[in-house]
Amino acid sequence: MTGWVKIVGLGPGAENLVTPQVADALAQATDVIGYIPYVARVSARPGLTLHPSDNRVELDRAAHALTLAADGQRVVVVSSGDPGVFAMASAVFEALEDGPAEWRELKIDVLPGITAMLAAAARAGAPLGHDFCAINLSDNLKPWALIEKRLRLAVEGDFAMAFYNPRSKSRPDGFVRTLEVLNEACGDARPIIFARAVSTPDENIRVVALPDARPEMADMRTVVIVGASNTRVIDGADGPIVYTPRSVLS
Amino acid sequence: MTGWVKIVGLGPGAENLVTPQVADALAQATDVIGYIPYVARVSARPGLTLHPSDNRVELDRAAHALTLAADGQRVVVVSSGDPGVFAMASAVFEALEDGPAEWRELKIDVLPGITAMLAAAARAGAPLGHDFCAINLSDNLKPWALIEKRLRLAVEGDFAMAFYNPRSKSRPDGFVRTLEVLNEACGDARPIIFARAVSTPDENIRVVALPDARPEMADMRTVVIVGASNTRVIDGADGPIVYTPRSVLS
Repeated sequence: MTGWVKIVGLGPGAENLVTPQVADALAQATDVIGYIPYVARVSARPGLTLHPSDNRVELDRAAHALTLAADGQRVVVVSSGDPGVFAMASAVFEALEDGPAEWRELKIDVLPGITAMLAAAARAGAPLGHDFCAINLSDNLKPWALIEKRLRLAVEGDFAMAFYNPRSKSRPDGFVRTLEVLNEACGDARPIIFARAVSTPDENIRVVALPDARPEMADMRTVVIVGASNTRVIDGADGPIVYTPRSVLS
Repeated sequence: MTGWVKIVGLGPGAENLVTPQVADALAQATDVIGYIPYVARVSARPGLTLHPSDNRVELDRAAHALTLAADGQRVVVVSSGDPGVFAMASAVFEALEDGPAEWRELKIDVLPGITAMLAAAARAGAPLGHDFCAINLSDNLKPWALIEKRLRLAVEGDFAMAFYNPRSKSRPDGFVRTLEVLNEACGDARPIIFARAVSTPDENIRVVALPDARPEMADMRTVVIVGASNTRVIDGADGPIVYTPRSVLS
């Protein structure tokens, strides 16, 4: 078998945040598979077939990639950000585990990318500069009770927190509840960052105190970061800088 | 003031994991500041002064960067991985907060990089494919009791976990205790990944069941990843693939 699959991260949006390793993989590919807006970031060229697909068909997409590779194609599966963070890598391995034995012989690589929370953190300062958690707020694939449990434990452990998929049109209520839980559990005015479409022309970074956060500040293009209890906000030349110190005194 | 500071992430080691944004910053710099092995990754050229410094002088290094920028220099502070994850960005902002008022007028940017845990996760499969925590196991800057508390809460929340700075010659006991706490709290044989020097010629990835983990499997060049309770190991063409499914059933 000469086909392969590379599951790659395109980073948050800007071309200069795509690693050379990922650019090389795209240059070698015969097929690119992924969600429509991510495939749209790949330049067309002779010999390359683009296979954009809709949201929520991750397993079909993964099986398609593995089938093409088993046929000898060089397949790149694209995610935004990092492919291993709430993205396509797990879906491909789920499909691999449930698929035909011949797929197990395929060369499959995961190529990391700049994930949204780290791009967002960089634009805000260094809010994730100490221990932190990453939580997907979508309850499409897990029960809300588990999300709430993790939120409360993350606050109890005084982790900074990064939230992916905070709010969509089909799930307007979860983020309302998230803010209620956070305000109740944190009980302070620590900073919360709404980072939308980081590194794209639509980028918008907003820093507010947790009690002032409103659900409509987030949408599906937003990563939300909540500080730990000792996270600080200072004035910088370009606006507020949010950072979590490296040290926690005993 | 025409000087600036860019706090950049060089990624885990390989040149093809350095973003073009970071490469551009290095090309524009007059001064590069950082820990000796990271500064060694930057090519010397006329007009560029390299300022390598030893470990544990992060605040001095940060003040040096800000002082040079206030004098009009174009200063790049280098970290490995991502500068906002247990690295130099927080140190620079700590120095900024405590420093002279004129520093607040400086243009300071953080440029993200591929952090070690995501490079390690990619090499192992997708162990961080669902909610996860990142914990620095060094007790140089926080009490061990807080580390243990966070470990136990992370297990209780069934997060996957990534550990930075697991073990050093001066702290041989912390990781022994970490493995004891994990075995006690997890009570199962979930996979643990020891990913050493990812993307460098010294790379070594080792996957074992948690009860089989030994302290000497980690050193300061190792990132350790522990799965959630539902993390799976399957056979792939290049060895074991570790992944955490996207879905948690209620």
